[in-house]
Amino acid sequence: METRKEWKLKGNSDIKTASSFSIARVIADVKTNINLSDERPVIPLSIGDPSIFPCFRTPQVAQDAVVDALTSAKFNGCAPKGGLVQARRSVAEYLSCNLPYKLSPDDVYVTSGAKQAIEIVLTALRRPDANILLPKPGYPAYEALSVINRLQVRHFDLLQEKDWEVDLNGLEAVADDNTVAMVIINPGNPCGNVFTQDHLKKIAETARRLGILVIADEAYGHLTFGSNPFVPMGVFGNIAPVLTLGSISKRWMVPGWRVGWIARSDPHGIFEEQGIVECIKRSLNANSDAATFMQAALPQILEKTTDDFYVKTINILKKDADMCYERLKEIPCFTCLKRPQGSLFFMVKLDMSRLQGINDDMEFCSKLAKEESVILLPGFVLRMENWVRVTFGIEPSALEDGLARIKAFCLRHASKC
Amino acid sequence: METRKEWKLKGNSDIKTASSFSIARVIADVKTNINLSDERPVIPLSIGDPSIFPCFRTPQVAQDAVVDALTSAKFNGCAPKGGLVQARRSVAEYLSCNLPYKLSPDDVYVTSGAKQAIEIVLTALRRPDANILLPKPGYPAYEALSVINRLQVRHFDLLQEKDWEVDLNGLEAVADDNTVAMVIINPGNPCGNVFTQDHLKKIAETARRLGILVIADEAYGHLTFGSNPFVPMGVFGNIAPVLTLGSISKRWMVPGWRVGWIARSDPHGIFEEQGIVECIKRSLNANSDAATFMQAALPQILEKTTDDFYVKTINILKKDADMCYERLKEIPCFTCLKRPQGSLFFMVKLDMSRLQGINDDMEFCSKLAKEESVILLPGFVLRMENWVRVTFGIEPSALEDGLARIKAFCLRHASKC
Repeated sequence: METRKEWKLKGNSDIKTASSFSIARVIADVKTNINLSDERPVIPLSIGDPSIFPCFRTPQVAQDAVVDALTSAKFNGCAPKGGLVQARRSVAEYLSCNLPYKLSPDDVYVTSGAKQAIEIVLTALRRPDANILLPKPGYPAYEALSVINRLQVRHFDLLQEKDWEVDLNGLEAVADDNTVAMVIINPGNPCGNVFTQDHLKKIAETARRLGILVIADEAYGHLTFGSNPFVPMGVFGNIAPVLTLGSISKRWMVPGWRVGWIARSDPHGIFEEQGIVECIKRSLNANSDAATFMQAALPQILEKTTDDFYVKTINILKKDADMCYERLKEIPCFTCLKRPQGSLFFMVKLDMSRLQGINDDMEFCSKLAKEESVILLPGFVLRMENWVRVTFGIEPSALEDGLARIKAFCLRHASKC
Repeated sequence: METRKEWKLKGNSDIKTASSFSIARVIADVKTNINLSDERPVIPLSIGDPSIFPCFRTPQVAQDAVVDALTSAKFNGCAPKGGLVQARRSVAEYLSCNLPYKLSPDDVYVTSGAKQAIEIVLTALRRPDANILLPKPGYPAYEALSVINRLQVRHFDLLQEKDWEVDLNGLEAVADDNTVAMVIINPGNPCGNVFTQDHLKKIAETARRLGILVIADEAYGHLTFGSNPFVPMGVFGNIAPVLTLGSISKRWMVPGWRVGWIARSDPHGIFEEQGIVECIKRSLNANSDAATFMQAALPQILEKTTDDFYVKTINILKKDADMCYERLKEIPCFTCLKRPQGSLFFMVKLDMSRLQGINDDMEFCSKLAKEESVILLPGFVLRMENWVRVTFGIEPSALEDGLARIKAFCLRHASKC
């Protein structure tokens, strides 16, 4: 028999590092504790996917748009890279409603959801020794994709005592000549905060001082129900160039439909001048994209959805957010800093001294899953040990049930002193 | 006014290199030559997307499957990473029909088309100093994604005189201890060849001798109409581990639907042992995926499409392939080595000595676009200078028209000697 070399298939070690930033894996681990003989429904307060609840069902006009595009048989082929022109135009118009200037279709690139928008942008920005500034707490996909793209990560804090605003001094301290971008998530995942216009302007001014771009993750754009209205970062594109990442996933409650965008808010043409536009186009070229008929459906989805759907969604989320905040505030082992203002989540701190036989956030969530079939996200995966992220964006009656079970659990595990 | 640092946004230089391997960009350049006052329809013989032609329309059962999944409203949320279990199961069953063993759903990962399958696999394999062996000529997305993933590329030839079989001696000569994989494309893009079972076995034996895996791109699986039937590389998974990449894009003529797969044919569990399975899962975790309702539609598409659709498609392609071969064979400046056996394309060599005033393949294609509104792909982008790739997979009457125009063009530019 011929001599065979040993198999040399070792695989990507960056990937192994990147996967430590995986919400899905941590939730799967928490769920292994679920008691299968508990007949009560599992209450999912860990991920941001309300689509399973009838009260959040996407409007008929959106579904019809997709069916129409598909059954026309005109969109079975490949789309041009960057997206169908009608899709790009409709996103440009949709976003321009909230900007002081008009975006053109050329400023927009359609992607397979906001997650792919992140991939595309980080691939475009990658170069040796470059670093990117990420918020802590934030959305771990940025860490994972930065590692995969060999972009060094540096964190800046969101300040608990200031409604989770960016610690701008801290951010400037970690930036250097190799910093290419900062990421903000507004409305905030995981904190449920909404930045004021004034704070967004300060962020833009800081970025300009540092000579870096702002990646504005607006996946939860318009999902606000507090005193701060949603203001897109692109409003300040004349101060520092902004790449806005968004999708229909959250506002239309269809994360499984996989269609999103990258939009350039850059009236001074800095991206073009610096070669970033070219890099984005080439990154798009090398990657997969959104289904063509989904792109074709975008104009109808963005233009024909009526206000009653938006208003109804916001009303439910506000009711949920208030209920969640009020009920958790009563429980001694939780510290809730501020009522959530937007998105589907907020962060809650655990006072471990108020709990007996529970040593950290993972243990808290594991036991809660086991004893009460309620799933929360342990904060350690967001670099916030002994915090938990609570998703309030579910059916109000299911939320009520979940909150009651959390209360019972905490009482049962309250420390005796 | 505060001092501002210069903008430091330079961007990814790998991307600039990668984009030199872009079929889309080259075709866009060729098309800039089209004479807009030519009233004749443009005949597209450069890309593999027959979906625009009614004769290739995807069957009703496939469209209905997608509409049913979408309108059920059960699949608006995110799918588990790796895909819905019913989608994975249906692909496993579909592929197992042509294998000597059964794949399990765990052997299958659903992706957003075959292109994303390439991205996922190359990301999973990437490590410092690793190299990958690619066929020449081949599919440039492999070069582009290898560059982006910092995988060094080495080429092996496909032998013109042996029906485009792999030059196995040449392949062994370029492999070394850092080689992780070889890629084969069967049925062949761009050559239109179909490997024999015997040759596939030799490929597997070579891979085993080298200790590397085989990435089998079977995007054109089952699209064969010559004397060699389609044999999946996975048949030899017991000799060397195989990652099969596929999709519904070509067989169902829906490249815009973006749903495909990676399948492991690895009865000896080498991928698991070497940690590759874990790397693939983590690569999937970090990336976007196929629309959930598309995944939900897969079982019906794969199981309920009837033979009459497959037979009809093959009959049209065979008619096209024969027509293309016979007509081009008559034109002196072309050398056609073999009648295409599969896929939607074949490669044709230009004899520049038979042409006057045309110096290379790009000039040939540019002038053809300008004078006859026919689009071919210049071979230089596939590393085959002075060849062209001809797509025969279009409506037969449109192909007839295109071939007549090509003939007229070549006669007009024939050298006088």
